Amino acid sequence: MIDWQRVSGGVTAPRGYRAAGIKAGLKPSGLPDLALILSDVEAIAAGVFTTSHVKAACVDYCRQRLQAKHSARAILCNAGQANAATGKQGMMDAFESAMELAKVLDIPSESVLLASTGVIGQRIKMDALKAGIPKLVAELSETGSDAAANAIITTDLVTKSIALETTIGDRPVRIGGIAKGSGMIHPNMATMLAFVTCDAAVSPTLWQQMLARAADKSFNSITVDGDTSTNDCLIALANGQSRTPAITEMGIEAEKLGGMLTAVCQHLAKAVARDGEGATCLIEVQVTGTADEASARQIAKTIASSSLVKSAIFGRDPNWGRIAAAAGRASIPFEQDNLKIQLGNFLLMEHGQPLPFDRNAASAYLKHAADNTSTPGNISQRIDNPVVIAVNVGNGHGSGKAWGCDLSYDYVKINAEYTT
Amino acid sequence: MIDWQRVSGGVTAPRGYRAAGIKAGLKPSGLPDLALILSDVEAIAAGVFTTSHVKAACVDYCRQRLQAKHSARAILCNAGQANAATGKQGMMDAFESAMELAKVLDIPSESVLLASTGVIGQRIKMDALKAGIPKLVAELSETGSDAAANAIITTDLVTKSIALETTIGDRPVRIGGIAKGSGMIHPNMATMLAFVTCDAAVSPTLWQQMLARAADKSFNSITVDGDTSTNDCLIALANGQSRTPAITEMGIEAEKLGGMLTAVCQHLAKAVARDGEGATCLIEVQVTGTADEASARQIAKTIASSSLVKSAIFGRDPNWGRIAAAAGRASIPFEQDNLKIQLGNFLLMEHGQPLPFDRNAASAYLKHAADNTSTPGNISQRIDNPVVIAVNVGNGHGSGKAWGCDLSYDYVKINAEYTT
Repeated sequence: MIDWQRVSGGVTAPRGYRAAGIKAGLKPSGLPDLALILSDVEAIAAGVFTTSHVKAACVDYCRQRLQAKHSARAILCNAGQANAATGKQGMMDAFESAMELAKVLDIPSESVLLASTGVIGQRIKMDALKAGIPKLVAELSETGSDAAANAIITTDLVTKSIALETTIGDRPVRIGGIAKGSGMIHPNMATMLAFVTCDAAVSPTLWQQMLARAADKSFNSITVDGDTSTNDCLIALANGQSRTPAITEMGIEAEKLGGMLTAVCQHLAKAVARDGEGATCLIEVQVTGTADEASARQIAKTIASSSLVKSAIFGRDPNWGRIAAAAGRASIPFEQDNLKIQLGNFLLMEHGQPLPFDRNAASAYLKHAADNTSTPGNISQRIDNPVVIAVNVGNGHGSGKAWGCDLSYDYVKINAEYTT
Repeated sequence: MIDWQRVSGGVTAPRGYRAAGIKAGLKPSGLPDLALILSDVEAIAAGVFTTSHVKAACVDYCRQRLQAKHSARAILCNAGQANAATGKQGMMDAFESAMELAKVLDIPSESVLLASTGVIGQRIKMDALKAGIPKLVAELSETGSDAAANAIITTDLVTKSIALETTIGDRPVRIGGIAKGSGMIHPNMATMLAFVTCDAAVSPTLWQQMLARAADKSFNSITVDGDTSTNDCLIALANGQSRTPAITEMGIEAEKLGGMLTAVCQHLAKAVARDGEGATCLIEVQVTGTADEASARQIAKTIASSSLVKSAIFGRDPNWGRIAAAAGRASIPFEQDNLKIQLGNFLLMEHGQPLPFDRNAASAYLKHAADNTSTPGNISQRIDNPVVIAVNVGNGHGSGKAWGCDLSYDYVKINAEYTT
């Protein structure tokens, strides 16, 4: 049951947060490249990070911090240099960045979390970063979310931002989020980053559980090209400034907060998938009939990441055979006689066998969905009418979704022609 | 130690085999579409099949046959209709095909194995198939391998064929093979098929073990687009007609035969990878320093299947960052400080950190390797000088290879624009 509503303000929509984004001279382009999110008080902090064994200094740094204490006040993010594959010096740069910010903010450096995005193998331009920090802090404002969202993007075509509000104990509670990423893209301009703020009071363990679950149903269910980055991170703060009763165990309130957190993450994740390089539309794959949720998501992700399915959608080709084949190779056993495939309202396959359907009308549906989601400025319009592939594999109660985008000439062009 | 040599003749190079390929009217194009390989005597038979849960009738058929008895005399293969997602009727068609061939050959239908490739969801054109069988049998010859190789291809640009010879007990032993496939390709023209013949005498258990191992090091180590087909199959016959001593347990002879089987499969697998849709070159990824072979292969396959790496190679971009990132996300733990990456002779990264290198020269290496392998007619030339990516991740003794191809505009074009 959805009982929340959209509000404006992104990560500064919840109470007790300020944000800023400035041009610090880190990006060669001269565009904004340094962002800060600050909670007025120490906030419960949870994080989900890349599972890659080749990872950035900021990922190791945040993991260490969050292992030592489950709270933080600030998230500092630089764009331009990924600070990945930079060895011990990269780690020292990370610590120095945190200490520098802590000094200017007059908070413990243990309360600073870090994220980086940009070119792998390049250290952060520390002089520029350090010179930028006082200016960044001076820019902090309760309407600074858009500036921050704009300073964390690299190859993104649009910024990604959302905020939702619900009530807990008759008082408003908000969750806001910003994100960047369009696949692991451009030569080395890796990274999916997402920062979430919340003004509810919630226990650290529960908040981390909610975030892990939200990540599984959002960022871990999107795919642009199957490439996971060295720097991927999702950090969520909950500062209790809504003055609502503390949520310390599972129950109605926890479900409501967790559901809203998932909705925020899903919005951001879909926005990232839609912004996939060269993409012309968002694809939503809905899988039902598995034994559990994870199995359904795995089938959905396999379909959403199939180059053949993605190429077919780009070609506006209602190619059920590729969808069936992708479902079959997802390593989740099912009886192929149970397979049912729908594309929008078109039933393409049932009981494991193809059905006659109006191929031109189905192709027109694909074309229409792409046209519908092609407005660059309006992210909601871009993600609210995806191409829907619905697959049922049996009678189980498991269901899950995944999101992706189509594979176009531009993907190859962008990724083949960038450097050298 | 390689102690075998190339011989001509493909699947009819070993003693006691005949083959044929004809136009039976199954393909809309009118090209050859029905192939037969026949052993003069009942041969030990082993098979490796798609792991997809959506699979063709011929796959279920062969699995049942090989479970019941580990031998066969004939492999019948049709191209044009995949007979996948065709339900019970598809299975009945499979049995009927086998019985029809058995009748004409006057052998038990239990000695017939089947393979299909073509459009998913389409049943085999049974009338054409049945009418073609007597003609096919009449065409059987000891020089029929090329005709068979030509009748099993669909979207392939070239046929794939090889034969090797070694000596066991001072007598010549040969293994021959033919294959088709260029990824799971064209709308529904799925399928990697490979048929191997051998004239050694070997126990069924050992032969199946050798084939499984050869498949892991060849067909299971190639990737074109990550899509596994509904019809993939590798069938190997060993008929003992070399009159060499039976190999019934592991030892020098078994290693020699197994090694040669792997070499045959690797040649065919590389030829399939090189023939990937839109590909301009073959990529070989060599991984060392893991705990075991399987881990090395998994890292190698992840790199070879990365869309970003593949796009970079197509763009002749020596992009070590993408290689490092792909290695890191292969789910095989390693210390990133141990990571070493070479592209041809260019050392791009060592101790987990990027090194300065001559970017133009490295790009020229990629261009040269592609030019070198661009002769469509000469399959050996196409696969003997691949782009080599060598990655070391530690001090373990595990090593493994994978093969793939680059990702070009033509891949998207072929797969986006085919149907509707």
